[in-house]
Amino acid sequence: MAIPYPPHFSLSSPETPIEPLPLTQDDLKKIAAYKAVDDFVESGMVVGLGTGSTAKHAVDRIGELIQKGILSNIVCIPTSTRTQEQALSLQIPLSDLDSHPVVDLTIDGADEVDPHLNLVKGRGGSLLREKLIESASRKFVVVVDESKLVKYIGGSGLAMPVEVVPFCWKFNARRLEEVFGYAGCRAQLRRKGGGGDGDAYVTDNGNYIVDLYLERAIGDLKAASEAMMRMSGVVENGMFLDMATAVIVAGSGGITVKDKV
Amino acid sequence: MAIPYPPHFSLSSPETPIEPLPLTQDDLKKIAAYKAVDDFVESGMVVGLGTGSTAKHAVDRIGELIQKGILSNIVCIPTSTRTQEQALSLQIPLSDLDSHPVVDLTIDGADEVDPHLNLVKGRGGSLLREKLIESASRKFVVVVDESKLVKYIGGSGLAMPVEVVPFCWKFNARRLEEVFGYAGCRAQLRRKGGGGDGDAYVTDNGNYIVDLYLERAIGDLKAASEAMMRMSGVVENGMFLDMATAVIVAGSGGITVKDKV
Repeated sequence: MAIPYPPHFSLSSPETPIEPLPLTQDDLKKIAAYKAVDDFVESGMVVGLGTGSTAKHAVDRIGELIQKGILSNIVCIPTSTRTQEQALSLQIPLSDLDSHPVVDLTIDGADEVDPHLNLVKGRGGSLLREKLIESASRKFVVVVDESKLVKYIGGSGLAMPVEVVPFCWKFNARRLEEVFGYAGCRAQLRRKGGGGDGDAYVTDNGNYIVDLYLERAIGDLKAASEAMMRMSGVVENGMFLDMATAVIVAGSGGITVKDKV
Repeated sequence: MAIPYPPHFSLSSPETPIEPLPLTQDDLKKIAAYKAVDDFVESGMVVGLGTGSTAKHAVDRIGELIQKGILSNIVCIPTSTRTQEQALSLQIPLSDLDSHPVVDLTIDGADEVDPHLNLVKGRGGSLLREKLIESASRKFVVVVDESKLVKYIGGSGLAMPVEVVPFCWKFNARRLEEVFGYAGCRAQLRRKGGGGDGDAYVTDNGNYIVDLYLERAIGDLKAASEAMMRMSGVVENGMFLDMATAVIVAGSGGITVKDKV
């Protein structure tokens, strides 16, 4: 059940008029991200920092609470070079999994959340590092606006990313289409700028992303994920199954926390 | 049953004395590789070219038969940049899996062959491209000298390679040691020159190799392989299970062809 925002709730600063403004999608992302940090992050923790437009707000908030002295003795592990740069600019102390193989908590966004808290992630291109760090985390809190809730994985009609080595990527894209042909799968190389003829987008690991578009549900998600992982040249896929411990959803009607049951 | 070599069998050229020379390990590799090419490669085929000291002889032989006009209308797919360079120097026509997604035949060496024709490959560092091309091949003929036969996978005591992304490789090496702790697993980063403190060896795909050394059998090979492939950051492993259609073994007592049953 969603907890409604207080009357006249607004994220605008005191200088702007008191009149409540309608919440934008970015406002909702910020509400979810701030709630995750305020409710879950404690001094002394090893914290994984997600990547993307929602996770960015969580990183901002952690930086702010460190600056204010409310959080101390924190060390953070970024899931991308982009997040690493943001964290450095906020003077957040950083480390990596080699030094801290167990992470207390990671906060990250998601592109899709199904009713069982399975996720699609990686439209931001950082799925491998995210999955590596999130699977090493005791708690993994996902922060989304309500537009990310789907009935089934792939149900948004948007991309499900698969990271592949550049060598023979076309061969692997074709194999993925064949294997998931029953779900009406179409595979497309991700390109810089999003156009159809630019250079291939290259991940932090020097790989390509093949985006899968599904017309129907893919069926047994675990079996689908393992079928991809068995293919030589497939490095990671964007399905994060049975990993989220809580999902914080900010919607126009209020905020909801879904816990793993 | 091994077919013995004819009396006075020798690979030496006519200018050298008739006196038979003892066969070196490289002679045995060459015998196996030549037999594979002579028995299996036909004009008009798409042929995968392996990597390593044994496969090199097969590539030489294919080049020779093309030069002599015995083989024609062949197109070959190399499993490494090294093999590609060798093939180019022999004027062997080359292509890739994107253009030829089905390969008629691949000939390649192996580091270990167990009684069920399961293999360890990739001590030469090219496991990913080899597995990609060999799993797309109708026939996969393995050529080895007898020293490569083992009772169980890992039984040579030599490395079983795992290709990992450079990001957090130590974390993944530690996880591999833990997961295969029951087999006395030790994981070691492969370095250039083979020493203990050089730069990391980098694969054709820009990744690292973590070599696993096992004290005991790893048990269910398929389960072990899938456990590795599920780990984020593991790109490929050197176990080639249920893939070889024939293994040609050259030994001091003669040549043996083992077919998949």
